[in-house]
Amino acid sequence: MIRKTRLYTPGPTPLLPAAQFAMAAADMHHRTPEFRALFQKVLAQLKVFVGTKNDVLLLSSSGTGAMEAAVSNLTSPGDPVLVLTAGKFGERWVSLVKAFGCKPDVVSAPYGETFDMAEVRKALKPSHKAIYVQANETSTTVRHDIQAIAKLRDEIAPETILVVDGITGLGTTHFDVDGWGVDIIIGGSQKAVMIPPGLAYLSVSERAWTAMEKSTNPRFYFDLRKERKNAKNGESAYTPAVALIAALGAALDYIAGQAGGDLEKGRIALVNNAEVNAAATRAGLQALGFKLFAPTAPGAAATAVSVPEGMDSGDVVKALKSRFAIVPANGQGEMKGKIFRVAHLGFFDYLDSIALIGAMEHIAKDTLGLKVEFGQGVAAAQKVFAEAVAKK
Amino acid sequence: MIRKTRLYTPGPTPLLPAAQFAMAAADMHHRTPEFRALFQKVLAQLKVFVGTKNDVLLLSSSGTGAMEAAVSNLTSPGDPVLVLTAGKFGERWVSLVKAFGCKPDVVSAPYGETFDMAEVRKALKPSHKAIYVQANETSTTVRHDIQAIAKLRDEIAPETILVVDGITGLGTTHFDVDGWGVDIIIGGSQKAVMIPPGLAYLSVSERAWTAMEKSTNPRFYFDLRKERKNAKNGESAYTPAVALIAALGAALDYIAGQAGGDLEKGRIALVNNAEVNAAATRAGLQALGFKLFAPTAPGAAATAVSVPEGMDSGDVVKALKSRFAIVPANGQGEMKGKIFRVAHLGFFDYLDSIALIGAMEHIAKDTLGLKVEFGQGVAAAQKVFAEAVAKK
Repeated sequence: MIRKTRLYTPGPTPLLPAAQFAMAAADMHHRTPEFRALFQKVLAQLKVFVGTKNDVLLLSSSGTGAMEAAVSNLTSPGDPVLVLTAGKFGERWVSLVKAFGCKPDVVSAPYGETFDMAEVRKALKPSHKAIYVQANETSTTVRHDIQAIAKLRDEIAPETILVVDGITGLGTTHFDVDGWGVDIIIGGSQKAVMIPPGLAYLSVSERAWTAMEKSTNPRFYFDLRKERKNAKNGESAYTPAVALIAALGAALDYIAGQAGGDLEKGRIALVNNAEVNAAATRAGLQALGFKLFAPTAPGAAATAVSVPEGMDSGDVVKALKSRFAIVPANGQGEMKGKIFRVAHLGFFDYLDSIALIGAMEHIAKDTLGLKVEFGQGVAAAQKVFAEAVAKK
Repeated sequence: MIRKTRLYTPGPTPLLPAAQFAMAAADMHHRTPEFRALFQKVLAQLKVFVGTKNDVLLLSSSGTGAMEAAVSNLTSPGDPVLVLTAGKFGERWVSLVKAFGCKPDVVSAPYGETFDMAEVRKALKPSHKAIYVQANETSTTVRHDIQAIAKLRDEIAPETILVVDGITGLGTTHFDVDGWGVDIIIGGSQKAVMIPPGLAYLSVSERAWTAMEKSTNPRFYFDLRKERKNAKNGESAYTPAVALIAALGAALDYIAGQAGGDLEKGRIALVNNAEVNAAATRAGLQALGFKLFAPTAPGAAATAVSVPEGMDSGDVVKALKSRFAIVPANGQGEMKGKIFRVAHLGFFDYLDSIALIGAMEHIAKDTLGLKVEFGQGVAAAQKVFAEAVAKK
């Protein structure tokens, strides 16, 4: 039986064919006018995709590299910072700031939940050099309220740099980066922009550039000032991942093409696409009796699903793979075995959601022994889609 | 909203990614050891895929080119031949044999049906140079009984060459080419072998090679004797479509890889895959109230679906395209507007069938105004799939 491999992981996400072909064709040297034109075009597109007038830089690294840059460039050993954590990627901020000698105050939320804003208000101090937070906590699929956090920062600690890991938030969330005063927001290539891992991008505000001058933490490969200087000449400081940059340009062209060539509208459409697919998928899975792991603050990047007590989510992951070549994500850390995750960010369409739920109905019956009828999850997803289309 | 383009046409069919990449990489000259090795490998694979010990030749043309070769190489002006026609592609045989001056006796079946074998028996004469027939009439999706036709030939006209257009029959039908004595069977690249149009292949029996010596019809580009001679040296007579041949090799590797590297088993699995998807799709569409256009002799290559009286199948085709980026086929000729067709041959999997039926439920409601419940077609398809899996 033919089974097409279908990634439903919240990164890497399914590749856009046009980007794959651009990547294959990217046979160029990086110190040439040809590359400089590509690089400048992609940087300009990224500003629109992020939705900012700030500088946007590209790093040849995973998203974690840009997270490190946002620590090493902005802080000095001993600096107090505030970290908001509600999952594995929040915990990565804690590890990172500690690795660079910062003194973090930490506000935590339980896995599957977002922060109590009263606790954030209590914890935030004007002396905090920076706030580190996720827009979307990929490990739990929770969306945090970046606008509310930015408002608190404006009120309590107006000099504090707000650093947002938007790795799965960008392209799945309607941000107003400049309006809210987000100083740094970080994205990754293997997420909503539909290309393989290997590139990170981040926007940097004037407030962040200013703060950077005072930071004494060591940095070399991730020195953002050097990248900014080189970017002005259409180059990267070090050898860039040329093929991925070509792919990224093709993907941003595609996203713009979804809205008649208007990348800003294309970005909005991409977020709405993720929202509709997330809503349809959730309705479908809930109709099969599954519980959402993060029902109170769900992001559109992915959906985390709890399996019934006594069952192992690893069995769902394995069965989806072996029977349907569907690749979902298991839970991370302590969530492993308890939840599985399926993505909606990037190159997913409604029929991908229908296919997933169709497959899950077989798994629910055969692997988990749940009492479900064929079509009952699909029908619930279809209703959500029909309503979303009717609203437009 | 993102909509992935999804071909459900019975050729071209969805491209296999591994074949796309092999095609992109095929930067070679065709008079080199490198190409000769590729060409000989692909010809050997094609013998297994066709299931024959006869010669198999590759032509850089569409399937119609190989159909012409099977007329021009085997007949002389004035030769009596038997043509069995039940649709647009049967009619193409009639046009072709007339173009080469043959005198066809024609047995027809109405669109949507296969032949009355008593009529074939009555029409067939030992003087017929050849019988021309489709294995699968793509315009109506009917499967003809090639084994029964071969038996009649053995009984009544043992010298008559049996020529089968297997363009959508190969990879969707369990043939015994040599056991049944099929002299020529023709395939096309854009069908079950998952690559773009541009290549045809055909197997040629010893009986056909012998008959070819007496034919006086003109042929040059499609001279099969020349191709056979060149193929023995690993070359084609004229410049071959190199990239498509590289793609075909990759696709046949993939089909073999589906059965642990055994291409014969892979071919059988591919046929069974089409059968299961055809059965699931038909159950799903019938559960929505659609009637099959060819219920009595359905092939697994595609399904032709009648729309209710007074409705236009073109509306279904347009709506599937505009709402879901699904590309089905309308009816051809007089069937246009009355039926639409969706394919199962080649690189289709079960989740493609589920996605199609999920989309058709929206179309049935919104475009055709039929009284259907969401999930009712999907559930019927799921039951068929579950039973097929349970049987294995």
